[in-house]
Amino acid sequence: MNSNPIGVFDSGIGGLTAVKRLIQLLPNEDVIYLGDTGRVPYGSRSRETIIKYARQDAAFLLRHGIKAMIIACNTVSSTAFEEISRDAPVPVFDVIEPPSALAAASTKNGKIGVIGTTATVRSGAYERALGRLLPGAEVTSAACPLFVPLAENGRTSPDDLAVMTIARDYLARLLGSGADTVILGCTHYPLLRGAIAEILGGGVTLIDSGAATAEYASARLGELDLRSPSPAPGVRRYFVTDDAEGFEALASRFLGADVRGLTEQITLE
Amino acid sequence: MNSNPIGVFDSGIGGLTAVKRLIQLLPNEDVIYLGDTGRVPYGSRSRETIIKYARQDAAFLLRHGIKAMIIACNTVSSTAFEEISRDAPVPVFDVIEPPSALAAASTKNGKIGVIGTTATVRSGAYERALGRLLPGAEVTSAACPLFVPLAENGRTSPDDLAVMTIARDYLARLLGSGADTVILGCTHYPLLRGAIAEILGGGVTLIDSGAATAEYASARLGELDLRSPSPAPGVRRYFVTDDAEGFEALASRFLGADVRGLTEQITLE
Repeated sequence: MNSNPIGVFDSGIGGLTAVKRLIQLLPNEDVIYLGDTGRVPYGSRSRETIIKYARQDAAFLLRHGIKAMIIACNTVSSTAFEEISRDAPVPVFDVIEPPSALAAASTKNGKIGVIGTTATVRSGAYERALGRLLPGAEVTSAACPLFVPLAENGRTSPDDLAVMTIARDYLARLLGSGADTVILGCTHYPLLRGAIAEILGGGVTLIDSGAATAEYASARLGELDLRSPSPAPGVRRYFVTDDAEGFEALASRFLGADVRGLTEQITLE
Repeated sequence: MNSNPIGVFDSGIGGLTAVKRLIQLLPNEDVIYLGDTGRVPYGSRSRETIIKYARQDAAFLLRHGIKAMIIACNTVSSTAFEEISRDAPVPVFDVIEPPSALAAASTKNGKIGVIGTTATVRSGAYERALGRLLPGAEVTSAACPLFVPLAENGRTSPDDLAVMTIARDYLARLLGSGADTVILGCTHYPLLRGAIAEILGGGVTLIDSGAATAEYASARLGELDLRSPSPAPGVRRYFVTDDAEGFEALASRFLGADVRGLTEQITLE
């Protein structure tokens, strides 16, 4: 048993989709969330810059005495997982393996699609994970670089012609591949689920990488005897590198809960 | 006469639209450009964060012995001009005044539109400048937060349904205002000129803030006796905070020239 907090970080606000599921599963755990909103987005940056930023993010969480770390960002998980987990004195969960395992279990025809940021797709991390979990899987990946700015600007509806035009362009290759299972390989993308589902059609299973990781981490914390003994509701604290107000205004859209007054601005560099 | 370089900075790559005009006007001047590509975009960040980043940008250029500084970023010019120019030992040119003066001279009906990032519009800097330059001017502003990601992802064409859908939403207020002159208050926006012009119609004059500033700075350097005596073509150096390759691949779209091999990655923090 361990009553220390679980640490979660993301380049910005998208990781809150993982926190949302984590809180549902483990309501009495303390959670510390770090969103690097002063430098978001990571997904269009180079590998070296992503690793540098991710190391600063992880170091911040570790200074807060966390008992486990969730990298709730596909860009970081796919690009810097080795660099972060190697030095960390606590278990580190990435957001690639759990959705890959779900996809491997879910597909009927062995054809799996992956959508993510430019950096995530460039890394090939999902291809490697799926190749290991389901040898012979046919994986088709597509970078969707405008999905994050669209989601952060509240343009997510299937009724939005701009969203649908961009999404149809990005998803054309997946449609052509015959994939029956598609991983939403960015923690922002669940906000665009309606638009993505409308284009891919009802027969395709969409897998939420943040939720899958929260489920996996929850189970593993039990196995590792790291669950909190406290029966009281957990305390959540949110840290950001840009102003707290901007984060709090957007957070409810991702978290489905009000975080006003719980957020603090910090400096990482 | 002064043969030191002119320093230009932007949050990312958009400021190259000002450099392009500067090189046309002053082909024998050395130019140092800094693009903070590791932290772009600035336009959606808080005032405090923008000021902090801009101070680091300006300090970097000043360490290179520049004779004048152009803030080729509307977000920084509108939010941090005082903070930067107050301490600088060289003339500092912002990207707000010159296009405002052009707009004040150009309008027939006194109705001027301004489009920019969320931070630029929030600052009210254009309203203040235009109110001073043309008392009684009616200014209508519209934030266009998705224009920067669209331009950086190469989606700028008037034939692109996504671009036109988003642009129509953003420009609706300007269309309704009857403005006959519209300032493109972000150095990325000239790339979207075709789409913006198609929506606003041929009767509306569009003013490029980067080009206007390059023209103003060029004239002022002459008046201040700061022009280079050298008859040889100027040397240009480009510095970025993310990888050089990514910048060089995009730069030609903004600059209309090849900068391969002229770019160096540096650290600001």
